Amino acid sequence: MKIEIINTGTELMLGFVLNTHQQWLCRQLSDNGYQVERQIAINDSGPAIQDAVREAMQRAELIIVTGGLGPTSDDLTRQFIAELLGVSLKEDAGVLERIEGFFAKRNRPAPPGTEVQALIPEGATVLMNEHGTAPGLVLCFARGVILMLPGPPRELHPMFLNQALPLIKQRFPLREKIVSLTLKSTGMGESVVEAHIRKPLSGLVERGLTIGYCARVGEVDIRLSAEGEASHTIVAEAEKIVRELIGKYIFGTGDDSLESVIVTHLVTQNKTLALAESCTGGFIANRITNVPGASSVFLGSAVTYSNEAKQILLNVPATVLSEHGAVSNETAQQMAEGARFRFKSDYAISVTGIAGQTGVMPEKPVGTVYIALADATGTTVLKQLNQYDRETFKFVTSQQALEMLRRRLI
Amino acid sequence: MKIEIINTGTELMLGFVLNTHQQWLCRQLSDNGYQVERQIAINDSGPAIQDAVREAMQRAELIIVTGGLGPTSDDLTRQFIAELLGVSLKEDAGVLERIEGFFAKRNRPAPPGTEVQALIPEGATVLMNEHGTAPGLVLCFARGVILMLPGPPRELHPMFLNQALPLIKQRFPLREKIVSLTLKSTGMGESVVEAHIRKPLSGLVERGLTIGYCARVGEVDIRLSAEGEASHTIVAEAEKIVRELIGKYIFGTGDDSLESVIVTHLVTQNKTLALAESCTGGFIANRITNVPGASSVFLGSAVTYSNEAKQILLNVPATVLSEHGAVSNETAQQMAEGARFRFKSDYAISVTGIAGQTGVMPEKPVGTVYIALADATGTTVLKQLNQYDRETFKFVTSQQALEMLRRRLI
Repeated sequence: MKIEIINTGTELMLGFVLNTHQQWLCRQLSDNGYQVERQIAINDSGPAIQDAVREAMQRAELIIVTGGLGPTSDDLTRQFIAELLGVSLKEDAGVLERIEGFFAKRNRPAPPGTEVQALIPEGATVLMNEHGTAPGLVLCFARGVILMLPGPPRELHPMFLNQALPLIKQRFPLREKIVSLTLKSTGMGESVVEAHIRKPLSGLVERGLTIGYCARVGEVDIRLSAEGEASHTIVAEAEKIVRELIGKYIFGTGDDSLESVIVTHLVTQNKTLALAESCTGGFIANRITNVPGASSVFLGSAVTYSNEAKQILLNVPATVLSEHGAVSNETAQQMAEGARFRFKSDYAISVTGIAGQTGVMPEKPVGTVYIALADATGTTVLKQLNQYDRETFKFVTSQQALEMLRRRLI
Repeated sequence: MKIEIINTGTELMLGFVLNTHQQWLCRQLSDNGYQVERQIAINDSGPAIQDAVREAMQRAELIIVTGGLGPTSDDLTRQFIAELLGVSLKEDAGVLERIEGFFAKRNRPAPPGTEVQALIPEGATVLMNEHGTAPGLVLCFARGVILMLPGPPRELHPMFLNQALPLIKQRFPLREKIVSLTLKSTGMGESVVEAHIRKPLSGLVERGLTIGYCARVGEVDIRLSAEGEASHTIVAEAEKIVRELIGKYIFGTGDDSLESVIVTHLVTQNKTLALAESCTGGFIANRITNVPGASSVFLGSAVTYSNEAKQILLNVPATVLSEHGAVSNETAQQMAEGARFRFKSDYAISVTGIAGQTGVMPEKPVGTVYIALADATGTTVLKQLNQYDRETFKFVTSQQALEMLRRRLI
């Protein structure tokens, strides 16, 4: 069974918006055992849409088309595809009523063009839109199905999960049960991870295990999957082997983030955290405060870019700064201990380093960073060399700092 | 002249990574007067890559292929395309030397497989990679050019801008001169911006002006473009009209960000900035410290999540917190003034609000936020209601806070 995704929209081709549908739909489908063969983005003109759909119909059994179902003049996907399939459009009284109800409920007049969205191609199945007006549409062709979904993510996501995915599962049942597990690691590069686990997993690969890697700087996902009767056993055995070999680098599974794992540990252990950030400039605090519920364990961060701020907010002695410099083992230690003292936290992490050209010295090249972790037992300092562009530097440094804390918490 | 983009990578089709290349490349091309006809993503298998390239060669004159040029076993784009075009691969001594030098400079051994990247298809032009090892490649076919670029954005971006784009401009000169200008605005929704400027610009639209909008929450780009002899005049007249009508909402042009504009103003005026962040959790500090050179004007941020931290780090009186609450006009004012005092800055911005369910009260619903700006002349407080998910809340709030400062600086 082949699946293709077609994303329509001139704004995509001008680079005005980021296409997030591709990743989202591919991920939902792969989590359910389906793999997308091809994704295409095109502008919303008739020839572009009809060519793309016509070609996809020669290759695929399931074609998912996004966008162009709304009420404005450039929303013509519905018409173009009906024309291509040679079916006519008819106003559906039930759909029209629903759309009018949508505006009535919000005390807003229906904007002009609204009724276009009630035009349904002959033979199409309608998917109700619970967060907007344009319904989704399911159309059959000789050897498969065309699924048309509205463009806005808040409309597309629930419609896909609640209505389209069950239809897909019913129409295209998987021959084999697929089990997959993603282990999330940090602190090892992709090739090092692979070197550790490839051979030990080779027996399971022969029995049907598939291993996938997804590497970003500072993070490697290991995806273990298998099909068929023995899939649960195979994936469980693979997980056991991976954890035995590189378990201490694995911080979570699935959609876990390092910051969410840390907040969970802190909540469970009833401990608090404070930060003292220089070169990361608030990035670590921002990550932690993205986790719902962080406020019960996270007290704050002193983002101290200037030397004076390090003295005033964190009690770093002027002599430490003048003798060792702002980017030093000693300053990192003082910052972490100062943060722990000022915020009265159980744990404090500090980072001080050189993200850009300012402050570079022969013995302290760009990318030099000191990370300190203070708790009741004392303070540990880690030196790293993270030679990346500014934003990657911040991310990698934050990973190292958070991982240092996670190791302390487990 | 038709352009197609082919993004290769099984991780794309599994939904493991977001494809940012499409938007980035489309935007660079459209800013230079070229429009992409089609973008395709496929997995990194031989049939998938060769089918996609073969089909694109029947439609397009310029084909941009990303990914699969690295050293690992699934990096086979180079080989598959050479095979498709019927050309052989030869090790290039100069490229190999450069790659070995890359690792020597970093005191790291070259990992196994590295030398594959020095295999160059017959007749190809090499694009040097200044941020990695895999070179880019330019290959000619009967009616056009295939451009192969490495996958990592920090390698692809400079290679495209510095080497590929000049080649494209030379090989495919535009018949008509295209002039385009993007004005960046904040504080007005897309439909409000459009309502203000559409009619006044209609005369210029008749003379050839094209208006494009790109809206994100908290920011609307207005793209003005025209082709041909009069294009400069038309775009300049359009800019004048837009600035007269909604000039105070426009913070920059092109790739300006609100934070970069503010850093420039502060540097020019020789003024310093400090922050006091509660609900934004370090997000504003992170934005500012992403701007190179920010360290000369940005002193730091007190990220005070807990009430106690607001007292200790920012001298917010306990009575203000107990009488008015942490999310209040009074606390915002005290935080801004406290930050200005502690950091000894010229300007200080504070934000305190309710990003999640914690702290919600009947008179203070989720999304309530107070933003204060303090300087030598006094303190101004702004109340906003930003009802979005957590990360959008942070972004919108940071836009409002930064815009408040920008208006003070101009």
